[in-house]
Amino acid sequence: MNETIMQFELSKEYLERFQQALNEQDAEFIRSSLEGVNPADITALLYEFDAEECKYVFSLLPKEVDAAILNDLEDDLRERFISEFSPEELAQYLEHLDSDDGADILYQMSIKKREEVIKYIENEEKASNILDLLRYDEDVAGGLMAKELIKANINWTILQCIEEIRKQAENVQKIYSVYVVDNLGKLVGKVSLKRIILAEDGVKIADIYDDTVVSVETYMEDEEVAQIMQKYDLEAVPVVNARGKLVGRITIDDVIDVITEMAEEERQMMAGISSDVEEDDTVWMLSKARLPWLIVGMVGGLAGAQFIGLFKGDIALIPALAFFIPLITATGGNVGIQSSSIVVQSLANPNVFSDGLLRRLMKVLFVAVVNGVILALMVFGVVMLFNRNEPLAATVSIALFSVVLLASFMGTITPLVLDKFGINPALASGPFITTANDLLGLAVYFSVAHLLYNL
Amino acid sequence: MNETIMQFELSKEYLERFQQALNEQDAEFIRSSLEGVNPADITALLYEFDAEECKYVFSLLPKEVDAAILNDLEDDLRERFISEFSPEELAQYLEHLDSDDGADILYQMSIKKREEVIKYIENEEKASNILDLLRYDEDVAGGLMAKELIKANINWTILQCIEEIRKQAENVQKIYSVYVVDNLGKLVGKVSLKRIILAEDGVKIADIYDDTVVSVETYMEDEEVAQIMQKYDLEAVPVVNARGKLVGRITIDDVIDVITEMAEEERQMMAGISSDVEEDDTVWMLSKARLPWLIVGMVGGLAGAQFIGLFKGDIALIPALAFFIPLITATGGNVGIQSSSIVVQSLANPNVFSDGLLRRLMKVLFVAVVNGVILALMVFGVVMLFNRNEPLAATVSIALFSVVLLASFMGTITPLVLDKFGINPALASGPFITTANDLLGLAVYFSVAHLLYNL
Repeated sequence: MNETIMQFELSKEYLERFQQALNEQDAEFIRSSLEGVNPADITALLYEFDAEECKYVFSLLPKEVDAAILNDLEDDLRERFISEFSPEELAQYLEHLDSDDGADILYQMSIKKREEVIKYIENEEKASNILDLLRYDEDVAGGLMAKELIKANINWTILQCIEEIRKQAENVQKIYSVYVVDNLGKLVGKVSLKRIILAEDGVKIADIYDDTVVSVETYMEDEEVAQIMQKYDLEAVPVVNARGKLVGRITIDDVIDVITEMAEEERQMMAGISSDVEEDDTVWMLSKARLPWLIVGMVGGLAGAQFIGLFKGDIALIPALAFFIPLITATGGNVGIQSSSIVVQSLANPNVFSDGLLRRLMKVLFVAVVNGVILALMVFGVVMLFNRNEPLAATVSIALFSVVLLASFMGTITPLVLDKFGINPALASGPFITTANDLLGLAVYFSVAHLLYNL
Repeated sequence: MNETIMQFELSKEYLERFQQALNEQDAEFIRSSLEGVNPADITALLYEFDAEECKYVFSLLPKEVDAAILNDLEDDLRERFISEFSPEELAQYLEHLDSDDGADILYQMSIKKREEVIKYIENEEKASNILDLLRYDEDVAGGLMAKELIKANINWTILQCIEEIRKQAENVQKIYSVYVVDNLGKLVGKVSLKRIILAEDGVKIADIYDDTVVSVETYMEDEEVAQIMQKYDLEAVPVVNARGKLVGRITIDDVIDVITEMAEEERQMMAGISSDVEEDDTVWMLSKARLPWLIVGMVGGLAGAQFIGLFKGDIALIPALAFFIPLITATGGNVGIQSSSIVVQSLANPNVFSDGLLRRLMKVLFVAVVNGVILALMVFGVVMLFNRNEPLAATVSIALFSVVLLASFMGTITPLVLDKFGINPALASGPFITTANDLLGLAVYFSVAHLLYNL
């Protein structure tokens, strides 16, 4: 950031000085050093201190800054914060937030506390707006939208429209566009602020509005809203109900949070973590999120053990067969994850050419043949070099080649099938595909060995 | 989307009708059915047809729509498109695009073709703006920004400012804020359009501007720009050079692309794909991107084979030891990926509590003990049930418990070390950690077996 303008930086010296001020309850220093600082920076600062200390800082700052900080906080930490404040205090903060941000905070409380907080909100319109939003699920457009927006009747003049902006100026922080509605409240278009500035005072909205506005419906899923806003490069999108009536507006900052969360969720899925956890969650929560996939992997491993057991005699005769088990299973796992992740990416990105299934599989086959041949030749060479054992080298390299082919095929087909059944295909890039391919690899390997050694 | 307003949908019937129109060169139908349709929708439509056909559609649409489509296209497809057009045609499209989008397209050409295209751009200011941007790397703020923005001198009146907006209205599609500069062109603040609308005509910019604007410098990396815009909920951020002079503006749509690309890059890294590929790349490109990590995995597997070879005698005596090799390696891999992905998430999200290293490792240890004990007990039970072999059950479950502990530790420490050395820690969630943990798991397993069986 440009330092001549944004001077706030969390230096070690500043943190120490701030800690000292906290210890001495030096309200003067805290107030003056945080004056004019962006609430997002104060939020980052507060992460360094404990709840007690943060509460003291809160008591020294203006209510609207406190509200902005409360809005900025990570969910986990906010939950702890919320329990520190009385319903009356929370209501005061909510007065300073947009209805959607207020609703997000209320979502984190028990129904009982929610009602108490709402009772204390003095601005009745705000209270009813928030209540309205609480009716929607958090992950649909209705749960993402704010009620605050500027709307103008299509029959108004520019002057009337500006008057409305003046009235709502305090409620709506960022305007972007004025939404145009008909007499029934139905969304019919929008006017950008630029157009309003450049229009003559007497002009009517009807003469200058743009009737090709993109809108979303209240029940639309947040991921779809994110895709639409991304596709059309929108910084805000109006939300209409089933009858086309304008009921809210979703701004890009909320959608960026959705995009970030989706990416995080997918990463956790790929890593085999079954619920949304973070490093600072409790030991029990972390263990519980990780256990399901570990058990799946374990069951797979035990099944593998039973399977290898079938070839007990082969191993007793040729113990060297056992040496290459990890090579076979690891390669199968790696190839499977690579294949499925490429398919998952295509599925997430429908703008890319979508060839037919057959052409897709043919291509996967070609790639697998190229990689399989290269790996098999390398392995053949190495095994001959170190073990000087032709049947063994042949067994391992033929099995490896087959595993690469099969794992590619499985890795490609699994996410496509999951997607068909409405399951998140990213699930296929995780321990699921590794476990399946481990078993597949073992089957191939021992079958090849059995054949080649004429056992 | 609200159907009363956005009626365009890619139905199968429409696609067939469109294909027919293409075959018959029915310009009338194509023109009329695409009139008023959002260019992003036309882009999606064009993905269904081949280059020849797309070029025909291009010839029928207004130049500014063609330009918007060219801007919307995926990189790969755009590259193919670019080669279809002459420098003169490309220059005409560039006239209709913002300087940053124009530069993005030029980045995809040879230096020679670039210069020819720029020569044909008639709007001299546009040409010099684009040339200016080409000086920057694609992945820094200077490469992301557009030169188009509205700036006002701090000494101007509102009326002068509105006059400037009028002059630039055609060049700057979305304004958001007017940036305020001093007589030297240094950025000193901003005024929102809302404030301009509500201000009296005679008021001076100096009286109403906001001097706490967040800005970024030209050399700042795109990922950092994305973090700042996300942190402060900005829809646009001004860019200044090293001397504080306002030189451009980055809008949120470009930054969303950065965020999406970062997530995609991380997924590929986790999946062990070494360069940015998509399903529709060539077989050779796909093979090449996947081979490096497959070879790393293979080398790991071969090292594992040599290692198991050391215990050849043990396996000959007790072949059942070989059965559980996949269980041990798979569990090690799964635990390692889970651990590293939780750390990677914390690193990507610096707002989360950052405990000291020691406390972090202690917690990892606790989680590992919980999961390790549960898995070990289950495995002990199953092996006793199916194999009725106490020393074997003890060996497998003790080894499994140790592997869970060690793999958790490795999975936690590896991304932290990579991050310290400036390497993307997501690398640790991929085949790297799996391969390392395979070897570690084998070492633990056979050591435990050797001890327990007194071999």
